[in-house]
Amino acid sequence: MKKSLGANTIVCPTPVFIVGSYDADDRPNMMAASWAGICCSKPPCIAVSLQEPRYSYDSIVRTQAFTISVPSTEQVREADYVGTYSGRNEDKFAAVGWTAVRSDLVNAPYAQECPLVVECKVIHTHELGVHTQFVGEIVDVKADEAVLDEKGMTDPMKIRPFIYNPGNGGYYSIGEFIGQAFSIGKELRAR
Amino acid sequence: MKKSLGANTIVCPTPVFIVGSYDADDRPNMMAASWAGICCSKPPCIAVSLQEPRYSYDSIVRTQAFTISVPSTEQVREADYVGTYSGRNEDKFAAVGWTAVRSDLVNAPYAQECPLVVECKVIHTHELGVHTQFVGEIVDVKADEAVLDEKGMTDPMKIRPFIYNPGNGGYYSIGEFIGQAFSIGKELRAR
Repeated sequence: MKKSLGANTIVCPTPVFIVGSYDADDRPNMMAASWAGICCSKPPCIAVSLQEPRYSYDSIVRTQAFTISVPSTEQVREADYVGTYSGRNEDKFAAVGWTAVRSDLVNAPYAQECPLVVECKVIHTHELGVHTQFVGEIVDVKADEAVLDEKGMTDPMKIRPFIYNPGNGGYYSIGEFIGQAFSIGKELRAR
Repeated sequence: MKKSLGANTIVCPTPVFIVGSYDADDRPNMMAASWAGICCSKPPCIAVSLQEPRYSYDSIVRTQAFTISVPSTEQVREADYVGTYSGRNEDKFAAVGWTAVRSDLVNAPYAQECPLVVECKVIHTHELGVHTQFVGEIVDVKADEAVLDEKGMTDPMKIRPFIYNPGNGGYYSIGEFIGQAFSIGKELRAR
């Protein structure tokens, strides 16, 4: 028997993504978003939802572009800072000591210090309620060489991303490799 | 200097959600989805993207409902099985030994054995490319008592969800608590 927790967003895990954009004065800004996720393979797309009062909202509407920088576990303080304070009042890149890199591909900045970044052009905007969902076509994914495995592929144990749990407001690290997709489940068929 | 990995969906972390639905014969089915995430707080909504050939696709279009069951780390084989084989050919609930529970609130089944479940009514359908995004309004979240903390809130260390890394196709467990949101970042302001 399960206990009802009501109609809310207490679902886990959710990601912690740093969303980069340029404001009306071309100043780099960033915010944290957990209402987000990959939403299409072809074209490759990622969706990020923002509330209209967020300072980044107007920026993304105007530039039709954003980046996602994936922070590492050791950057949890910086990421939380970015998610707590508004860029309306300060330069958050300077505040957390990160470097804003101007993307060559989209009109948005990303955080040099984050190990994995995604550059996106907005191709759909969906009004859902208090949040607006921006669907960004992924133009490129970039990673630090240090977080790639011997095949040149991203290794979560090196990126060390973390997740957010809306229920208790906690951040949690990624643990260990527990299985290969489209493989480990076949053990059940063999039973 | 970051290395370009191209225009693709190599982003992490992504969730592993089990999407439940009824087929045209009212038989319970489920699939695994990682192209998914919370997308609105009010109304509370979660988005899940499916490709049209998936057996669950027609079911969700017809019923305009789905559930999400969040599997635990010890259920990684079952979840991967659900993500590997099609319900067109078999009863996947029976195959993995899970119980399909008919939701009282929406026309979809969930997996009794998963510690956290979400019941959703489709309120938007977005054609994005090879994937269609179904936005489900969350009607209720239900959890096993055993995964709640002393405040009655969901505890990830008890749910033990896992994530998927599209880059190397690996599943990874959740590690440990690393900080409280809207709190740990304030340490930087105090500097």
